[in-house]
Amino acid sequence: MKAVGLVTEYNPLHNGHLYHLATAKQLVNADVVVAVMSGNFTQRAEPAILDKWHRTKAALLAGVDLVVELPVQFAVQPAHLFAHGAITLLDSLQVTDFVFGAEHADWNFGDLVAAEDQFEPVNFSHFNATYATLFNDQLQRQTGIALTEPNDILAFGYTKANLQLATPIQLHAIKRTGSAYHDENIDDQINQIGSASAIRKAVTDGNLAYENLVPPQTAFNLKQLKHVNDWEDLYPLLRYQLIQAPLTYIHQIYQMSEGLEYRLKRAAQTATSFREFMQLAKSKRYTYSRLQRVCLYTLLQVSTQEMQVRFKTPYLRVLGFNHSGQKYLHQIKKTVKIPIITKVDVELKKQQLQLDYRAGKLFEQLSASEQDLRRKPIIV
Amino acid sequence: MKAVGLVTEYNPLHNGHLYHLATAKQLVNADVVVAVMSGNFTQRAEPAILDKWHRTKAALLAGVDLVVELPVQFAVQPAHLFAHGAITLLDSLQVTDFVFGAEHADWNFGDLVAAEDQFEPVNFSHFNATYATLFNDQLQRQTGIALTEPNDILAFGYTKANLQLATPIQLHAIKRTGSAYHDENIDDQINQIGSASAIRKAVTDGNLAYENLVPPQTAFNLKQLKHVNDWEDLYPLLRYQLIQAPLTYIHQIYQMSEGLEYRLKRAAQTATSFREFMQLAKSKRYTYSRLQRVCLYTLLQVSTQEMQVRFKTPYLRVLGFNHSGQKYLHQIKKTVKIPIITKVDVELKKQQLQLDYRAGKLFEQLSASEQDLRRKPIIV
Repeated sequence: MKAVGLVTEYNPLHNGHLYHLATAKQLVNADVVVAVMSGNFTQRAEPAILDKWHRTKAALLAGVDLVVELPVQFAVQPAHLFAHGAITLLDSLQVTDFVFGAEHADWNFGDLVAAEDQFEPVNFSHFNATYATLFNDQLQRQTGIALTEPNDILAFGYTKANLQLATPIQLHAIKRTGSAYHDENIDDQINQIGSASAIRKAVTDGNLAYENLVPPQTAFNLKQLKHVNDWEDLYPLLRYQLIQAPLTYIHQIYQMSEGLEYRLKRAAQTATSFREFMQLAKSKRYTYSRLQRVCLYTLLQVSTQEMQVRFKTPYLRVLGFNHSGQKYLHQIKKTVKIPIITKVDVELKKQQLQLDYRAGKLFEQLSASEQDLRRKPIIV
Repeated sequence: MKAVGLVTEYNPLHNGHLYHLATAKQLVNADVVVAVMSGNFTQRAEPAILDKWHRTKAALLAGVDLVVELPVQFAVQPAHLFAHGAITLLDSLQVTDFVFGAEHADWNFGDLVAAEDQFEPVNFSHFNATYATLFNDQLQRQTGIALTEPNDILAFGYTKANLQLATPIQLHAIKRTGSAYHDENIDDQINQIGSASAIRKAVTDGNLAYENLVPPQTAFNLKQLKHVNDWEDLYPLLRYQLIQAPLTYIHQIYQMSEGLEYRLKRAAQTATSFREFMQLAKSKRYTYSRLQRVCLYTLLQVSTQEMQVRFKTPYLRVLGFNHSGQKYLHQIKKTVKIPIITKVDVELKKQQLQLDYRAGKLFEQLSASEQDLRRKPIIV
């Protein structure tokens, strides 16, 4: 069986994703579609609008054959680590091809990756700008190309991580259609395709215009939502932790660099909403996403040391499959080199899956349903 | 000026307290009444029904001349440490007399304290019973007296701590009138005196029968309460902390003894309310109050090490005064041996008052008003 891989957030699954899915299958002439999907927190460290189980079911109903979770240690990361984690799982899953969207699908991302070898070394700490800005300046100087759009940046990351594999996967960049990632305007969408962020905004606003932009299962789930998960709901916990925990403890948090703990602690003392907190905490030095990720790491109390351990022990957490997906899983089972996890028991919860488990428990404080223990893969 | 001391929680101030106040002043023929009052958390580690500022104002309006805060490191403690902290402050405040209520005001508490010297050493860890039970068994064997009522136990603690002073204070136990501490029934109260817990329950239930049992200022404040502070409101934070923090970190918490961290962590995984949590966490070994205090220490993330430092650095935090109180404060100022604090600045917040400050910030997450920074003593 020939398998094509996708890397997704499905936050939520919408018509643009259906197009991507159909195109990928056709392009590669694949027997099965395997999706590596973020769990309950997205790359930008936002709680997903629907939990991973609802999103898995929607994916399976839309035609994905097998859904595997991208663990939180890879899912909530800047593009290069997110891409590295995703490629590692796709490689373990033995897909021959990987299809992803990019704003500039016609670029030769391999050439861009090669250009990086020519970069002059930069000392980030000397500059009052984000790492992304510095990186881009150099890339533009070398290649004339500005790598600024989110899917182009991911495409670069995938290409780079893929080149490090013993047997690289065949990569296919396809042009993203419809609204741009940041477009929050839901009206007048092209071919009933709207961006995930426009759909989330419509859900939050109670604007039902999103209904035509998502498959029926997603529309049903979004309408059932009593409560839209966002950072404002997590802020009391973040505020609590930043105030009560000693500086030395906050200092050990992953990515808490260059005295950022002082800045965050200070902002938490006075800010009574997450919005206000971010205004106080933000500086030119950090992107909004970077700060938001550090906030999530703080909530998960994940130290640099723990993160290093988690990076070294990959696994395949199966969230759901259909008959084809099950057959494919059976086919590759004997040759997959990392553990395949279908059920989280107490031992896994304490060891390998500790961080995913904690992320699930944190999400449970918003969604009120247990995310890992006693959960079985969704089968459709 | 001759000063009489009181040790209070005023949670909330009620008619029984007014009786106590008048009796104390008359008994000693005092010029000023000085009250050492718990801050925002009570001895049983419960958030006070009104914050320390509202309770201070009510106390001053009722005739107390000077209110000083019993810091959280002493206020949220079993009787012997609570009493030790209170006596230390009364001694620093140079009161000549201290009047307290006891269920058995006629007992000779000095004799009971002396009896303790004859106790056989007990190894607590061998027994499946609370320390209080073991202590009482021995006391009863030695003296025939059962020290079981809460104010008798405090009276014992005061007497013992007082005997350790260079110049002991004159102690006066007076009989508590009206409802017993644990009596939650508000109807049919003797002489319009109801227990604080009966009044709190009435407030929670929206039963206005408490109105006749409290002075007008307290009644006014309780009626304004939009929200009654209780542990259910703190539970999301406790649950968060017990799940996300590593075992090794929880282990360092003050009073987290004998593997209690495993028990609490386990209970937090499944319990979705504080009530359910306590049912799972409770064992014969720990009293409810003891467990509740450990929960508060966990929330405040106070380590054994930090608590030791806090014990060694007493201070007088002035919450409010009237003209007589101010005069008295002026009179003793030059000879008081510990710092008198009337305003919390950034330095105090970081150092000496760190724990009170954190307790105030935790309380603020319930009450939405800053408790320490930029607050001045209440003057009536």
